[in-house]
Amino acid sequence: MSGVSLLAYADRLCDSGRAVGDLTTLRKLLAGELSVLTGVHVLPFYTPYDGDDAGFDPVDHATVDPRLGTWDDVRAIAAHTEVTADIIVNHVSAHSAEFVDWLERGEASAHDGMFLTFDTVFPHGATEADITAFYRPRPGVPFTPYRARDGRRRLVWTTFMPSQVDIDVRHRAGIAYLEGLADTLAAGGVTTVRLDAVGYAVKTPGTDSFMTPDTLAFVAQAAEIIRARGLRVLVEVHAHYSQQLAIAPLVDLVYDFALPPLLLHSLGTGRTDRLAHWLGIRPANAVTVLDTHDGIGVIDAGPGAGLPGLLTEEEMAAVFARAADATGGHSTLASVTPTWASMPHQINATFFSVLGGDTWRMLLARAVQAFVPGEPQFYYVGLLGGLDDRDRFAATGQGREVNRHRYTREELDRALATPVTRGQLALAALRRHAVFGGAFSWSQPDEASLELVWRSAAEGGTPTHEARLLARFDEPDFTITLDGAEVPLDG
Amino acid sequence: MSGVSLLAYADRLCDSGRAVGDLTTLRKLLAGELSVLTGVHVLPFYTPYDGDDAGFDPVDHATVDPRLGTWDDVRAIAAHTEVTADIIVNHVSAHSAEFVDWLERGEASAHDGMFLTFDTVFPHGATEADITAFYRPRPGVPFTPYRARDGRRRLVWTTFMPSQVDIDVRHRAGIAYLEGLADTLAAGGVTTVRLDAVGYAVKTPGTDSFMTPDTLAFVAQAAEIIRARGLRVLVEVHAHYSQQLAIAPLVDLVYDFALPPLLLHSLGTGRTDRLAHWLGIRPANAVTVLDTHDGIGVIDAGPGAGLPGLLTEEEMAAVFARAADATGGHSTLASVTPTWASMPHQINATFFSVLGGDTWRMLLARAVQAFVPGEPQFYYVGLLGGLDDRDRFAATGQGREVNRHRYTREELDRALATPVTRGQLALAALRRHAVFGGAFSWSQPDEASLELVWRSAAEGGTPTHEARLLARFDEPDFTITLDGAEVPLDG
Repeated sequence: MSGVSLLAYADRLCDSGRAVGDLTTLRKLLAGELSVLTGVHVLPFYTPYDGDDAGFDPVDHATVDPRLGTWDDVRAIAAHTEVTADIIVNHVSAHSAEFVDWLERGEASAHDGMFLTFDTVFPHGATEADITAFYRPRPGVPFTPYRARDGRRRLVWTTFMPSQVDIDVRHRAGIAYLEGLADTLAAGGVTTVRLDAVGYAVKTPGTDSFMTPDTLAFVAQAAEIIRARGLRVLVEVHAHYSQQLAIAPLVDLVYDFALPPLLLHSLGTGRTDRLAHWLGIRPANAVTVLDTHDGIGVIDAGPGAGLPGLLTEEEMAAVFARAADATGGHSTLASVTPTWASMPHQINATFFSVLGGDTWRMLLARAVQAFVPGEPQFYYVGLLGGLDDRDRFAATGQGREVNRHRYTREELDRALATPVTRGQLALAALRRHAVFGGAFSWSQPDEASLELVWRSAAEGGTPTHEARLLARFDEPDFTITLDGAEVPLDG
Repeated sequence: MSGVSLLAYADRLCDSGRAVGDLTTLRKLLAGELSVLTGVHVLPFYTPYDGDDAGFDPVDHATVDPRLGTWDDVRAIAAHTEVTADIIVNHVSAHSAEFVDWLERGEASAHDGMFLTFDTVFPHGATEADITAFYRPRPGVPFTPYRARDGRRRLVWTTFMPSQVDIDVRHRAGIAYLEGLADTLAAGGVTTVRLDAVGYAVKTPGTDSFMTPDTLAFVAQAAEIIRARGLRVLVEVHAHYSQQLAIAPLVDLVYDFALPPLLLHSLGTGRTDRLAHWLGIRPANAVTVLDTHDGIGVIDAGPGAGLPGLLTEEEMAAVFARAADATGGHSTLASVTPTWASMPHQINATFFSVLGGDTWRMLLARAVQAFVPGEPQFYYVGLLGGLDDRDRFAATGQGREVNRHRYTREELDRALATPVTRGQLALAALRRHAVFGGAFSWSQPDEASLELVWRSAAEGGTPTHEARLLARFDEPDFTITLDGAEVPLDG
């Protein structure tokens, strides 16, 4: 896929006079004001799109939420734009028909075995050490009591929220569920499947059950199932960079989640050594991001898995501190520290807020993202120059909601006219140029700068092209040239 | 103790121009407008009085929160009024010096053993059945992950909130903690100790660990420790009435928590058979209540422990439904259903709200309470005719806060002038009469009525006295006579 794709919720970009967006509004935007974008990752649009975890807790993963549209609407987008969609493989809503049926009928349920219980993981019981070994992204323990219809009490594995019940991905019922979803998405016109939170999917007693060899084996198996339907596989893992490197060869795409904290580090310190180091070792089959619906994932650049990070713990702490500074302390308030962690995994703030609303620094970061090999993805809030939605955080108590603003048509129109959005759309237009299918090279002219270059060789009648980004971070500035001529970013 | 006592928070009855009350304000009230009351149970005034569980999660259980006063202020109240105070025996705040020291120094801590961990309860590990066997008043599982300074991960037992860490009451460190608290309270002028939530204090694998034979043995041991300091022991257990009956002989006082739901049942159905049955079997060494800071405990009158209740499950549901009706559905919203329960343990609403703000029905209920044998206690919100504080619920998300209004001096003055408060104070004045030290008898003149009678025999120069309450519930009405003359309740 060439060009830049959008990451967006179907419901949070609204048409004129509408309080909630839908797939039709999104299609019109992608055909209109955002037509320069070549792909879209529509965040979960299944039923319901607005559960406890904003779509990541589907009750019916196979249907499009009727408030957003139908599979025909998804196919209509896919007719002109590459579509990425999620398969939520680790868990499903406790209100799903499958889980309700299992609580109701137990071993007589067709879904018996689909859900992971305490006894499935620990058939001989567990001690404190066994239970506390698990790595998880939320506070508390990873299981929740439920009562079956026959009065039997069950402890169901819940890695994320208590209402998100974990699927036993090693049981045939769990595999059948995954196969069914892959069929559904392929029929819906989706071309890339994002496997959500797959790093937690396999529980192996005696380990921390995060990105273990068992996890990698399951990822390979899931990728095979999905590819067999003609779909590409994008894997979402927030983890130490060595774990990203380990999983990259098994799938079509991983995320480059290290890039945003490294950019924030460079913008904060004026130095490019950490970033340059990453350019030398990062996987090229990556979706690049600055911001996502989950906030700014800082953990990915830090130490972990017993290994040093791309940033030290002190440097990560400084990234958090600068974000707190830029947001008047709000990012600290909104970010969550998981049970065994010493700092949050993610900064809950918009990328633009963390940069103090500075247009030029935002465009510098986006320019680097656009020039780094991979498939650039722009999150709608970042693209629209969104600042922290503190009201939404206050109303919901959910830190990540600061970075999930729902735009009215009027707000959207205002945003589209701002330099920060026009500049990003200009970068997206540039990124469609054939030169980005050529050869990439980079250098570090001095300790505060980076130069990123793409060249396409002459072939038949096609002339040689060269795109070049020179970025400096001590006094943040950058220039882009295409075939020697400066590319303006005023849209 | 003769007469009626008050149940109140020190901080929620404020002096003129003050946003928060204190022990001095409370003392002045008890010496002034409320001087007809003969005792006071001051809800936890330890440091801090305003933690996650409104004082029931002390960081320093042995000190008076300096914002409320000092032990001298407690002694000043005790000079004129019987004082009851809590010992929170089941748990302490995770921010307590003891717990922090133990996390810091582990086995080298003087408090090693004081806290109950998963491995202490299950030295050989636990299965799903083991873990789900526990009876507990909150949703979720009863333990919470904590990390010790040395990196060791611990699962600490937390029966109530994650920040309330359970004490191992069978370990000598736990016993020493209890002994120290009893010494402190005795020195502070307290005459009655309320043992909070003692039904959950002992964990016995293979049982539901609520009010087991082990629990009773511990209650007897704790009572011995406290009585050895010259203090009376009042035990708080919300449980099936048979469990109240079992514990009553072991201690000085239990609560009659069955009375309020039975009164609500009689007021709702117009029938007194359930209430009459309870009068025949209830323990006389009881503190009687209508409302407390924990809401209206309905579970105590219901089925449980495998036995039928004083009310059937349907009758309990009807009590909840009428409460919901009277509060426009708010009591349903504010009440919490624990993990394995089919309905809430408590109605989170004020008693006056549940009676639809009807003064006469409130006074009828209080009159029955005042005439039933035992030591009547009036909760400040009920005494002041308080209605649901919905704002406080909305602001805190805590259901019980609807029944914990903080009164300004102006609100207090207004309340003291209302018929519902003047009537209750008149009942409290009556209750000081010597006749209530005589012999009690009761009858059920018809299926809608109850007659409660106290008689004191002539002795030496003391004449015979008789106090009589005739209450009917179908068309709620009552009359009180003392030595044949009607007692007016207009203060």
